[in-house]
Amino acid sequence: MPLMEALHWRYAAKRMNGSKVPQGTLDTILEAARLAPSSYGLQPYSVLVVEDAALRERIRQTACDQPQVSECSHLLIFAAWTEVDGRHVDELISLTAEARGLDPGELEGYRQSLRSAVAGFAEPVLRHQWAARQAYIALGTALTAAAAERIDASPMEGFDPAALDDLLGLEQQGLRSVVLLALGYRDTTHDRLAGMAKVRWPRERFVVEWGGA
Amino acid sequence: MPLMEALHWRYAAKRMNGSKVPQGTLDTILEAARLAPSSYGLQPYSVLVVEDAALRERIRQTACDQPQVSECSHLLIFAAWTEVDGRHVDELISLTAEARGLDPGELEGYRQSLRSAVAGFAEPVLRHQWAARQAYIALGTALTAAAAERIDASPMEGFDPAALDDLLGLEQQGLRSVVLLALGYRDTTHDRLAGMAKVRWPRERFVVEWGGA
Repeated sequence: MPLMEALHWRYAAKRMNGSKVPQGTLDTILEAARLAPSSYGLQPYSVLVVEDAALRERIRQTACDQPQVSECSHLLIFAAWTEVDGRHVDELISLTAEARGLDPGELEGYRQSLRSAVAGFAEPVLRHQWAARQAYIALGTALTAAAAERIDASPMEGFDPAALDDLLGLEQQGLRSVVLLALGYRDTTHDRLAGMAKVRWPRERFVVEWGGA
Repeated sequence: MPLMEALHWRYAAKRMNGSKVPQGTLDTILEAARLAPSSYGLQPYSVLVVEDAALRERIRQTACDQPQVSECSHLLIFAAWTEVDGRHVDELISLTAEARGLDPGELEGYRQSLRSAVAGFAEPVLRHQWAARQAYIALGTALTAAAAERIDASPMEGFDPAALDDLLGLEQQGLRSVVLLALGYRDTTHDRLAGMAKVRWPRERFVVEWGGA
């Protein structure tokens, strides 16, 4: 199956060669992220796309000076929404009614259950963890779509979220950075990890077949 | 692109028809999860596979009585490791040396940096959040691989982790349940969501093109 070949092919490139990912391919990867499922369908995060080289250079300083921030084609920043409340529920209900050709009134029960769900995430730390996890589903989906397109994609947690948020003024936008994904092309000359065997726990360590009681 | 068609085809089926996913297809989905990247390559979680119907019936009682727990073919439980320490680092170093045909001594610097990274996750709540996020990357990858195989996959956060952990005795295994994924086949007769238009934030709401400073 081609997707499995793609997943074997991919690795987290630490060096990239600066070549640009074509817009159509970038759009496919972003669309895969957009289609990822999320808790209650609320997708409580945004994906920022940074192409500007000077800005990526500054971002690199908040990301342990990792070269792929400069050397990638586009840097994606998955950023959780700091607020998720009834307004988002109402927005989602309107969108749902429109997409499905329904009267919003028919969705009143759904609206109430979503409002109740969102109220369960009123506590900021809990809400952030919940929102961040949803972003990670999209991260996994985007990574896989990138591999299918033979685009290198390096997920990065090694950065200072507060410094990055300050640099980009994310707090004022109601956003908080969660994880980065550098998209581009591996530099096989300078990346000593390129071509090395993939290391994963063996299946018997990773998968537990759970029998009956 | 076939993968994008698959992502449009998929949805979180709330009702399934009980048909069994062939072992080879299940293996492909599990393998996709196993190949997912993780922080420092530590993959600090396990994937439990529950096929036994009676056990799934009991699990359903800890999961808001959601029918897909009984009606799926296999229920995957993504469970974070409660402990991640130097022993795991040593295990990973051995595995890396073996996979790459290296002498473990050559990886001493790498071992020290991994040990230092793991020490940064000594605090249990922080460690759990970190481990859970890694599991979500695999969740996104598995979801996508399932769609590519035209297997329905319903991610589920609506369950009581403590009750499920008790039921399965996960704590004694050093595991803590994080998220569920029901694999099977949609029941298009009983699932009122089957065939409904997918609802996602429009691209201009989801993606932010971030310009230069």
